[in-house]
Amino acid sequence: MSKRYFEDLDDDETHDLGTWTVSEDEIMAFAERYDPQSFHTDPAAAEESIYGGLIASGWQTVALTMRTMVDGFLGDVACMGARGIDDLSWSKPVRPGDEISTRLRLLETEPTDTTLGDVRAETIGTNQEGEVVISWINNFLVERRDSP
Amino acid sequence: MSKRYFEDLDDDETHDLGTWTVSEDEIMAFAERYDPQSFHTDPAAAEESIYGGLIASGWQTVALTMRTMVDGFLGDVACMGARGIDDLSWSKPVRPGDEISTRLRLLETEPTDTTLGDVRAETIGTNQEGEVVISWINNFLVERRDSP
Repeated sequence: MSKRYFEDLDDDETHDLGTWTVSEDEIMAFAERYDPQSFHTDPAAAEESIYGGLIASGWQTVALTMRTMVDGFLGDVACMGARGIDDLSWSKPVRPGDEISTRLRLLETEPTDTTLGDVRAETIGTNQEGEVVISWINNFLVERRDSP
Repeated sequence: MSKRYFEDLDDDETHDLGTWTVSEDEIMAFAERYDPQSFHTDPAAAEESIYGGLIASGWQTVALTMRTMVDGFLGDVACMGARGIDDLSWSKPVRPGDEISTRLRLLETEPTDTTLGDVRAETIGTNQEGEVVISWINNFLVERRDSP
């Protein structure tokens, strides 16, 4: 499939990005390296915490959602990275075996210069109970079709 | 060291959290799983991109900064996770071997209920040239000293 450039994106596009799950082992491995808090690394300590069991690092939840975003949307977009994000919210914990469905909706597209355009998009992840577990606003940079 | 509870935190605390670096191999391994865009996974393609070389996924930059936050601040705080973050900004790319120094500053502390308090904090990562590469605002949950 050919790349989609800034000019090919519509303000109101919506994309179902698929689903992801994470195992207890992968939760603990990620947390050991990046976020070694006991409710992410130690099932027994997590049991005693306010969460009542092991939960994924919020950053792993973001990163796994990012993966579905690359596979389901960015893969055929001439994306040049992102400036940042706004309003990241972890509304519910993610536990081993949860199935998270993710969806992306474009909110706004605006040319930056002759090379790039800014694309604002909302991403939401919902668990198997229909509860939103994560949401945030992306500020992507997308190449313009006739960039010099 | 004994745990610090919500009541033990001051509004204007600042913590130098240490430094981190990331190798080309670790950049590619993280990106293969979580963010497989070619400027994170493929040195030759990255060379041809607007970045002129391989750069770390922004989410890996966040996660490595998080690690210094756990080691340098959260480790002795009765932190119960976070509600979310605001204003995450990737100001400059992070390349293999860059040395990123991180710092956290508390902005605001407010009791939520008898069990938890909300703690708002700014985190900044600066590279070896003194350039800010990443910043964001955390909204942590911290246990109250006399929580029931």
